[in-house]
Amino acid sequence: MASSWVRGSWPPPHILYGGDYNPEQWPPEVWREDVKLMTEAGVNLATVGVFSWSWLEPAPGEFDFGWLREVLDLLHSSGIDVALATPTASPPPWLSASHPEVLPVTAAGVRFSHGSRQHFCVHSPVYRRHALRIVDRLARELGDHPAVRLWHLHNEYACHVPACYCDVSAAAFRDWLRHRYGTPDALNEAWGAAFWSQRYRDFAEVLPPRVTPTHPNPAQQLDYQRFMNDSYLAEFTDERDLVRAVTPGLPVTTNFMGFFKPLDYFQWAAAEDLCCTDNYPDPADPASPMLTAMHYDLIRSVKKGTPWTVMEQTTLRVNWRPVNAAKPPGEMRKGSYQALARDAVGLLFFQWRAARAGAEKFHSALLPHSGTAAPAWAEVTGLGAELQTLPELNASRVASAAAIAFSWPNWWALELGSKPSAEIQMLSQLRWMYRPLWEAAATADFVRPDEDLSGYPLLLVPSLYLLTEAEATCISSYVRSGGTAVLSFWTGIVNESEQVYLGGYGGPLRELFGGAVLDVAPLQPGETVELAWADGRRSSATHWQDIIEPGAGQVLARYASGPWAGRPAVLEHRYGDGRVIYLGTRLDQAAMRDLIAPLLGGQPPVPSGVERVLRTAGPVTYEFLLNHTGTPVPVPTAPGGTDLLTGTEAGEHLNLPPAGVAIIRREPAS
Amino acid sequence: MASSWVRGSWPPPHILYGGDYNPEQWPPEVWREDVKLMTEAGVNLATVGVFSWSWLEPAPGEFDFGWLREVLDLLHSSGIDVALATPTASPPPWLSASHPEVLPVTAAGVRFSHGSRQHFCVHSPVYRRHALRIVDRLARELGDHPAVRLWHLHNEYACHVPACYCDVSAAAFRDWLRHRYGTPDALNEAWGAAFWSQRYRDFAEVLPPRVTPTHPNPAQQLDYQRFMNDSYLAEFTDERDLVRAVTPGLPVTTNFMGFFKPLDYFQWAAAEDLCCTDNYPDPADPASPMLTAMHYDLIRSVKKGTPWTVMEQTTLRVNWRPVNAAKPPGEMRKGSYQALARDAVGLLFFQWRAARAGAEKFHSALLPHSGTAAPAWAEVTGLGAELQTLPELNASRVASAAAIAFSWPNWWALELGSKPSAEIQMLSQLRWMYRPLWEAAATADFVRPDEDLSGYPLLLVPSLYLLTEAEATCISSYVRSGGTAVLSFWTGIVNESEQVYLGGYGGPLRELFGGAVLDVAPLQPGETVELAWADGRRSSATHWQDIIEPGAGQVLARYASGPWAGRPAVLEHRYGDGRVIYLGTRLDQAAMRDLIAPLLGGQPPVPSGVERVLRTAGPVTYEFLLNHTGTPVPVPTAPGGTDLLTGTEAGEHLNLPPAGVAIIRREPAS
Amino acid sequence: MASSWVRGSWPPPHILYGGDYNPEQWPPEVWREDVKLMTEAGVNLATVGVFSWSWLEPAPGEFDFGWLREVLDLLHSSGIDVALATPTASPPPWLSASHPEVLPVTAAGVRFSHGSRQHFCVHSPVYRRHALRIVDRLARELGDHPAVRLWHLHNEYACHVPACYCDVSAAAFRDWLRHRYGTPDALNEAWGAAFWSQRYRDFAEVLPPRVTPTHPNPAQQLDYQRFMNDSYLAEFTDERDLVRAVTPGLPVTTNFMGFFKPLDYFQWAAAEDLCCTDNYPDPADPASPMLTAMHYDLIRSVKKGTPWTVMEQTTLRVNWRPVNAAKPPGEMRKGSYQALARDAVGLLFFQWRAARAGAEKFHSALLPHSGTAAPAWAEVTGLGAELQTLPELNASRVASAAAIAFSWPNWWALELGSKPSAEIQMLSQLRWMYRPLWEAAATADFVRPDEDLSGYPLLLVPSLYLLTEAEATCISSYVRSGGTAVLSFWTGIVNESEQVYLGGYGGPLRELFGGAVLDVAPLQPGETVELAWADGRRSSATHWQDIIEPGAGQVLARYASGPWAGRPAVLEHRYGDGRVIYLGTRLDQAAMRDLIAPLLGGQPPVPSGVERVLRTAGPVTYEFLLNHTGTPVPVPTAPGGTDLLTGTEAGEHLNLPPAGVAIIRREPAS
Repeated sequence: MASSWVRGSWPPPHILYGGDYNPEQWPPEVWREDVKLMTEAGVNLATVGVFSWSWLEPAPGEFDFGWLREVLDLLHSSGIDVALATPTASPPPWLSASHPEVLPVTAAGVRFSHGSRQHFCVHSPVYRRHALRIVDRLARELGDHPAVRLWHLHNEYACHVPACYCDVSAAAFRDWLRHRYGTPDALNEAWGAAFWSQRYRDFAEVLPPRVTPTHPNPAQQLDYQRFMNDSYLAEFTDERDLVRAVTPGLPVTTNFMGFFKPLDYFQWAAAEDLCCTDNYPDPADPASPMLTAMHYDLIRSVKKGTPWTVMEQTTLRVNWRPVNAAKPPGEMRKGSYQALARDAVGLLFFQWRAARAGAEKFHSALLPHSGTAAPAWAEVTGLGAELQTLPELNASRVASAAAIAFSWPNWWALELGSKPSAEIQMLSQLRWMYRPLWEAAATADFVRPDEDLSGYPLLLVPSLYLLTEAEATCISSYVRSGGTAVLSFWTGIVNESEQVYLGGYGGPLRELFGGAVLDVAPLQPGETVELAWADGRRSSATHWQDIIEPGAGQVLARYASGPWAGRPAVLEHRYGDGRVIYLGTRLDQAAMRDLIAPLLGGQPPVPSGVERVLRTAGPVTYEFLLNHTGTPVPVPTAPGGTDLLTGTEAGEHLNLPPAGVAIIRREPAS
Repeated sequence: MASSWVRGSWPPPHILYGGDYNPEQWPPEVWREDVKLMTEAGVNLATVGVFSWSWLEPAPGEFDFGWLREVLDLLHSSGIDVALATPTASPPPWLSASHPEVLPVTAAGVRFSHGSRQHFCVHSPVYRRHALRIVDRLARELGDHPAVRLWHLHNEYACHVPACYCDVSAAAFRDWLRHRYGTPDALNEAWGAAFWSQRYRDFAEVLPPRVTPTHPNPAQQLDYQRFMNDSYLAEFTDERDLVRAVTPGLPVTTNFMGFFKPLDYFQWAAAEDLCCTDNYPDPADPASPMLTAMHYDLIRSVKKGTPWTVMEQTTLRVNWRPVNAAKPPGEMRKGSYQALARDAVGLLFFQWRAARAGAEKFHSALLPHSGTAAPAWAEVTGLGAELQTLPELNASRVASAAAIAFSWPNWWALELGSKPSAEIQMLSQLRWMYRPLWEAAATADFVRPDEDLSGYPLLLVPSLYLLTEAEATCISSYVRSGGTAVLSFWTGIVNESEQVYLGGYGGPLRELFGGAVLDVAPLQPGETVELAWADGRRSSATHWQDIIEPGAGQVLARYASGPWAGRPAVLEHRYGDGRVIYLGTRLDQAAMRDLIAPLLGGQPPVPSGVERVLRTAGPVTYEFLLNHTGTPVPVPTAPGGTDLLTGTEAGEHLNLPPAGVAIIRREPAS
Repeated sequence: MASSWVRGSWPPPHILYGGDYNPEQWPPEVWREDVKLMTEAGVNLATVGVFSWSWLEPAPGEFDFGWLREVLDLLHSSGIDVALATPTASPPPWLSASHPEVLPVTAAGVRFSHGSRQHFCVHSPVYRRHALRIVDRLARELGDHPAVRLWHLHNEYACHVPACYCDVSAAAFRDWLRHRYGTPDALNEAWGAAFWSQRYRDFAEVLPPRVTPTHPNPAQQLDYQRFMNDSYLAEFTDERDLVRAVTPGLPVTTNFMGFFKPLDYFQWAAAEDLCCTDNYPDPADPASPMLTAMHYDLIRSVKKGTPWTVMEQTTLRVNWRPVNAAKPPGEMRKGSYQALARDAVGLLFFQWRAARAGAEKFHSALLPHSGTAAPAWAEVTGLGAELQTLPELNASRVASAAAIAFSWPNWWALELGSKPSAEIQMLSQLRWMYRPLWEAAATADFVRPDEDLSGYPLLLVPSLYLLTEAEATCISSYVRSGGTAVLSFWTGIVNESEQVYLGGYGGPLRELFGGAVLDVAPLQPGETVELAWADGRRSSATHWQDIIEPGAGQVLARYASGPWAGRPAVLEHRYGDGRVIYLGTRLDQAAMRDLIAPLLGGQPPVPSGVERVLRTAGPVTYEFLLNHTGTPVPVPTAPGGTDLLTGTEAGEHLNLPPAGVAIIRREPAS
């Protein structure tokens, strides 16, 4: 019954399956039933301790690890590995009752109370001291337990409190600014303090961006987002350093939340040993399969080359939407394979056993309220059994067809107020550019705009509003060396201090565009403009119109309606050895597909609603096929190869049932 | 001119007619005109003193009752009785100016100011001491005045401040919890404190459910609602005990507000001598007649057997909706008869004379701004004259055709956050089940789920999410003894601590359902699912789908679309000597009518838009017929009997004009 | 290169052209380029210093005027005049950092932070002392600079902080009330304190209308609006008196914002030497041309006879709407002529050079981010050149065809809560009555209801809810002496203490109506009622129905649907030598046009979408014609006269291109 996963290694030799386990919510007799049922379900990993602080330290400085050791012993005796969590995401009531100053404060000055979770200010030295003490004790007491394979630090950093505005935070912000800028004058310059008479004599005069009579300084807001990200990351690295000191070699992670704005996961991924993510697609949203693919592409991308795991998903429903649609039969399984298709090596759930009490009792679990009679239980045990046949997948990796330039500072800056249009939002722009890839079954990496982009056949750049000189250099080099880039409007507008590049929009990327963006004219929600393409086609566009003066580029399309009719809308520009397509407006999705598909170099087409992803391991390929429609779909495939899930040999067509999945393993003809 | 109503008796020998009278807003010469016009209008009761505190006690400890005695003398001299109100719903500015700590505080920590009304924290000992002092003085000064027939305590308890979150309230909450739970561990168990690390070492650590970073503990919220209800009730009983001590035998009441969530009127009704209610239907809402009937059924039900009175309604318009539609001609009269049809013995209004100033000056009154020339005045005097011919009605009582299980703790729990669907709201569920009764002219009682239900031919149970063991026993017994019950989905989910009954939803009622509810799948707003009935009919449903495993019950209908097609949707189950119809989804109103009407045992049909209610007094029956449509309607009636309002004999048809009313008195054929 | 505008005179001998200039945002080398480009663009006025406080007084009591003197020298050397601004709208961070009590507080008790602008409480003695010190120093240092022609005090008074609710403000409010009422009893009487027990023993008990459990006292709110207006005005007059003392004769102004509710611009205009306004029409709103005309009519009206100037407009876009539509080509020019058509003598912009940083960097400017290549720059220089040919216009004045009664206290009172309908809003009512004038090309003055109205052929009175006795006398006299007045419903309801006139709505204007308004019945949003006119026409109406008893007037129209069908809706009443048309409901716009057009006395018709305004200078007339449609429009004109913009002679038709403008100068046939 011993686990085959060697302590200290990553990835594991099998696919992880299991989830959060909160034994403190149940009496010990239930623990025994839990382990029995976990075994029945094929569960091989349990995450414990996530919200256990008030049970591990029931009073300040009084610790009780016995019950948790007993749980670990039980799991270990059944060969179930453990991700040991630090409980710092929810301090006990005794901490905030005796130190109310640890509670976070909103921009309007409201101090939160305890009674839910994440009720701490990350800058509070009192919180930090207590958090590190429980982490240290936990590591020393249980870090060397033979069941433990992973450190899971904290939980969903910053999810409810993206920023704290208390006086302690204000002081920390000033220190951060002193470190960043050195002098008040450098701060004044970076923040454009000459505007609205905001010149600071001394850092001591600076405040967090609390509520103000009107628009607060945008550079101040941007720096506050950087500062908060840094503060949470410092809390993470403090915990990490502490557990690494006690249990060297044990991999450390925390659970990401996909496209989560407050934290720059490129930075975070670099600080941990592997990535995890929590994914809760809305079954009522038809875009969910695409959004999940985009989410998983991001997680794979932030720590390239290292397999990752789903840390949380749900079997049926969540509890925090206004109306929480249930996954239809088969959806949980199919969604799980979506993760495996994009290099995941683990499928974990929140949570093992549905709670009887508390705010998440109606969040579905592996083991529902109605027990093993529930339909979900049959799906859980079925998937568990299936996964045990697939360990070979862990050695293969996705190869991507395109790169999408993405940066958190740009996201933060793009969505600050006082813009030409509040409709230009990061996720909306990403979805717009990702959809043609999704429809063409082309997997994409998300890349930092300042990383080495060579090797990607195609680069997409959606509204890279905040652009550093280094990023511009990197993108220019990519094109100059022969790359193809599709750049959208509202790219290259401001520098890292959110100050406008003068002399025509685009800034240091301006010469790539093939024309001069002289001004911008947002469209109202619902408003469209017609485009006339040079090849005679017509299409429509929304959201935005660049006002472009033609230049060295070729005009692919012009506005054909509205006050700017006749002005260029889409340019193509040979630049160096490469080429740039510049989009001055938001093309409709059909026009996007027509534009992008030819740039992808012969991806075989898939029927609408079917997802195809390729993973390779040396000469072996794994073709994942997933049917996201509600009807059976015949999918053309290359003959040869075996469906790992059915053992049948692939013919010219594969019939995928609704929510059906196939994984066709192919080896080179020998 | 002396009143025929014997002091100390209830109900009165006539129908009460009148309203709130605020003489402090007018000079004494107006008082004389008021009394003259009241007499002209047939007014026989005036409620005085509701907001008189700062006039009765202009400075702390300085009292002035002379002006009010003069008003009472004047009213008495014209034979107009008085409901004497305690003025504690609006403390004088001097109280909060000198004791700001009496002002209530929101969950976000905002302390309200004086300048409107109800600006007190019910837990404040300062407020309570001052409130009881003015009540005591008022009772001693004027309680024995010969005009007084009723005590009207306070006004619309809790209507603007359903909860206070100040530190004084926090301390009171801790006392309440100590009393309820005894030990912190019992509290931890009841609140599921193991979830999210919320374990309390000591009651001193507990806070009201103030703003938290995310979902606060639901059991904590539920207890806070119980606590606030108890606190307001304690304030009421303190005032009651005080006036009873001074004026024993004088009936005591306060004004309810129909389906008012914060207060458990079952408890409140038990604490008072008779019930009153304020009813302000929206003339622009076509559902208003039904909602008013439901409201009056509730008020009759919370103190069964004791006639009640409308304490406030309006002649034409209210002032607090965004757009305050006016009642069309005839509507005020018809709406008044709606109350009489359901056992009211009084029709009172806010207020006698329209105010010149203040926040409610555009709330219509018996005497409008334009005086006796106004159209409303003619309606007022007309109704006053008519009512004087109807004292015999007071002796009769409604006999109900059905019971609807209803409890405030369930309401509170059902609408806490973090549910599968926020669309499952108490009033919406009630309306859904009440409408088929309304359309069938079947009057219903609202019953506590733990009271004796025998005698009701039909019991409806809309989403009794929170279910105590005692309630389950009571409902089971009812069915086992031969009753027919229609139970809806989302019944029997949690116990009184809001902890889920495990092993399949329904908890202690589970075995009544006739199948196992294994999980639930909410539908999105606007989403429908088709049902196929065993008898071949089709219908649609919304809001929700139980995922049911068939059992001992007969499947009446199955889902015929969506991912759960084929699963049972409606079950019928013979249980003991009775039967249960279990609804796993929200049937459309046509299907509900088809389902419920046959269970009502031969109510004669009424034309659409006509309301029929029967009251009986021994062998005599009174058939109320009200036309809620805008056109004349011929209503089939049993021949015989006399219309009390016209004196004409009833034929086979009665032609009801728009807004028309008839009351047919029938005696057994002799 | 010297300016021809004589210091101390108003109006200037040419049309002012230029805008806000913020040199502190740029290095000195840019200043030189600025002046060069200003000259190129025809700019002749720059407003400097608006947000310069922290640059003029970088530390408390340390002043630096050298850089600004250098800028003024530069401008002067190129013949560009200067409007010198006091920088008091945005105090430096050092002020609020050392005196947090100067920061304003919301009604809910949230204290704003610095970091944007207008972060001061106008009642703070600390703020006032510092503000007057910098104004005084600025005046002494630069007031006599030869470039300066205007004082521009502060900026957009009250735009973000219409009211402060801090304790300092509370104390100031109490002083204001003591001054207004003398005794608490007078206050109690005026505020209707008998309602809801709000009687004050002492002024010390009074609070600002902070958040209360429900509707705060409306009279208290009304007085708070008066008080805040008075407080800001006092700040303005303090600054004014100070600069007048140093630079006697230099005209003083501040920038208004059109129909800006918090400030009574009739009072403000009386306190300054000339009026300015900021106008930011939404290019995406088709009503913008009409709203701009209405705005400019107001500004012309508040200081009748004195030419005014646009102080701020934008070339292309603003930055503060959610989606900021751009003006199409030609729109900026056309909009500028709209101002000239209504007596403006200046066209200034925010701002000269688009900012690189700060919250308004995407607010378009005369000189865009992309510099002189931008399309906007060509429009700017084109207009600048054109304006230099038009100085003669400054001597002519609009002659108005109608007057519209308007008062800020009425606006404040009308929109307090607890009304029959929240849909009766001042601007909506104004637009409703203004549109038939606009469509008939009839220019209107806005008049105080208590000013001399004789001389106006037509008076429109939209919902003059709050009506003083003096105003009623004035309007009655106007009609009695032969005037024609169109009065709408909800006129004459309350006095200046917001207390209802009893005995029938209309109060002291009641006898003008020709019938008795006995009560009111609001219509729901979207609800309509039919009208039948005495002459057989039908039309529809919305929003409201007066319930009218016919009287001495002739019934022009009756309700023809709904519960009040048959009641009068529109009355015509001969009163004295004049006549009154009383509208008991909100006629649709077609019916309004049919009603109003005949009362305007032969305005020649204009094609739809074309604006015509006449200015006269002695015997000379200037006919402005503006095409607000997107297509060419042939406009019939009187032959004769010359188009000042083209120099061509006018024929029988003028073809106006889209966004086209013509100014036809005509002299009497000699």
